[in-house]
Amino acid sequence: MHGSHAMNKNRDLDLLDRLADAASDAILPHFRKLPGVVNKAETGFDPVTIADRNAELAMRELLAAERPDDAIFGEEYDAVAGTSGRTWILDPIDGTRGFMSGLPTWGVLIALADESGPTLGMMCQPYVGERFVGGAEGATLTHNGETQPLRTRPCADLAEAVLASTGPQHFEPQDYAAFQQVATRCRLVRYGTDCYAYAMLAAGQIDVVVEAGLKPVDIAPFVPIIEAAGGALVDWSGQRIGPTLPHGFAGQVVAVGDPTLLDAVLAALRAA
Amino acid sequence: MHGSHAMNKNRDLDLLDRLADAASDAILPHFRKLPGVVNKAETGFDPVTIADRNAELAMRELLAAERPDDAIFGEEYDAVAGTSGRTWILDPIDGTRGFMSGLPTWGVLIALADESGPTLGMMCQPYVGERFVGGAEGATLTHNGETQPLRTRPCADLAEAVLASTGPQHFEPQDYAAFQQVATRCRLVRYGTDCYAYAMLAAGQIDVVVEAGLKPVDIAPFVPIIEAAGGALVDWSGQRIGPTLPHGFAGQVVAVGDPTLLDAVLAALRAA
Repeated sequence: MHGSHAMNKNRDLDLLDRLADAASDAILPHFRKLPGVVNKAETGFDPVTIADRNAELAMRELLAAERPDDAIFGEEYDAVAGTSGRTWILDPIDGTRGFMSGLPTWGVLIALADESGPTLGMMCQPYVGERFVGGAEGATLTHNGETQPLRTRPCADLAEAVLASTGPQHFEPQDYAAFQQVATRCRLVRYGTDCYAYAMLAAGQIDVVVEAGLKPVDIAPFVPIIEAAGGALVDWSGQRIGPTLPHGFAGQVVAVGDPTLLDAVLAALRAA
Repeated sequence: MHGSHAMNKNRDLDLLDRLADAASDAILPHFRKLPGVVNKAETGFDPVTIADRNAELAMRELLAAERPDDAIFGEEYDAVAGTSGRTWILDPIDGTRGFMSGLPTWGVLIALADESGPTLGMMCQPYVGERFVGGAEGATLTHNGETQPLRTRPCADLAEAVLASTGPQHFEPQDYAAFQQVATRCRLVRYGTDCYAYAMLAAGQIDVVVEAGLKPVDIAPFVPIIEAAGGALVDWSGQRIGPTLPHGFAGQVVAVGDPTLLDAVLAALRAA
C-alpha cells in the first residue's frame, strides 16, 4: 500500500512538470513580442488571449490522455466533471497585465485538489525558468536545474513586515480601506506582485499578502506551497482557504509567512 | 578619425558589459537568500546594502583601472572628478524594494554621459539574464545569448495606452493627483515596475511611464535606450531629461514610446 501511494505521488509530481512544460511551450512564443517580430496573422487578436487559451488546451489535452477520470477546473474553458474525486485547477497565465506589459512576473498555476482542497501545487515562471512546488513532501524552488527547500521566515511584529499586493486598483473601496489599515502598520508595501507575492512569501522574502477579488484558480497552488513552507493562508475572516477550493471561494486572501502574525493582520483589517 | 571613433565606441560597449559582469557577481550571492542558507556572519547587516555597496565598489575599481580620466557619479559613494569630460553614472541595484522582496524586477543601471547628457546606457537584470543597451548604434536586448533590436510601439491615443509607475506611495500628494489625471485616461495601469518600466517601454510593451522623486542614477541609462528605440523622455514640463543628467535633475519623468502621445500626457498632468 505504502509503495503504491508513494508511486502515485511521484506520478503526480511528474505530471505537474509535464503540464508546466506543455503550458510553457504554448506561452513563450507569445511573450513580449517585440514590434519588429509581430506575426501579422495575429493582427487584431490579442496575443495574451492566444497564449492563455493555447496553454490551457495543451494542459487539458495532456490531462485527458493521462488522467481521464480526474475533473478539470480551469480559467479559460468550462469545467470537466470527473469520477476520481480529484480535480486539476489550471490558470495558464496568472498576471496577464504583467504578461501584457512584458514583465517577468506572471506565472503558470497548476493545482491538484481532493475533497479537502488543493494538496499539490506549482507556480511555473517559464521565462525566468523557475518552478515553485508544494505538497505533502514539502515545498521547493527549482531554478537552473537546482532545487532548494522553501521556508517562510519568522516575523512576529507587523511593524517589521514586508506587505505585498498586486495593486490598489484591484480593491473595492471598502476592502481598500481595510487593506490600508494593514499597509500603514507595515514596514514596506510592494505592489505589482501577482502570483510572485505568494511564491516569495513561501521563500521567506515577503511576510504578508493581503488581496481581494481573486478567483479560485489564482490561489489554489499556493495553499500546499505556503502551508508546506510554514505559512498560513486564510480568508479575511480567518478561515483556511484550502477547503473552499475550487468552489465556494469568496476572493479575499490573507497570507502570512509567520502564523503568529495572523491575529495582528486580521485585527488591522477589522479596524477599517 | 572615423576608425578610431568606432573603436572607442566598441571599447565603451565592451567595458559596459564588464561593469555589468562585475556588478552581477557582487550582487547575485545576496539575492533572495532563502532562510535556510542565510550567512550568519551577516546577521544584523542588510544583505541589500552589502550587495549594493560591493557592486558599486567592483564597478569603481574597474573604472579606476580602465578609465582613470573619467568622472564617476554613483548612488552609494561620493562622486569622483575626472578630466576627460565623460562621467560614468552607476546605480548598482535600482529597485531595492523589489530586490528585498525577492522579485526579479530590480536591475543594475550604468550610463556614460558627456556634456550633452547620457550617450550610452545599460540596464542589466542578472537573475533573469537580460541586458538592455542603448546608444548611438541603436537599442538592443540580449537574453540567453540572443540579441534583438528594441523598438517602441505606436500608440497615438492615451485611451489605448498601458501606463506604468512604481507605486502610488512614491508620489507627493500633489504629484499623485497629477499622475491620477493621466492614469484615469489610460487603458491599464501597472505598478511595481521600477527600472523594468523604462526597459519595457523601449521594448514596445508599455506606452507611458510617469514618475516623480527619482534620482539621476535611476534614469540616466534610459535616455539613450529609449531615445534610440524611438521614444521620448522628458520632465513634467516637457523638457528633455538627458541634458540635466547627472546634475540638475528634479526627479519628475514622463516617458512615452510614441512621441505623438507626449502632448496628451503633459496636458493630463497639468489638469490636476
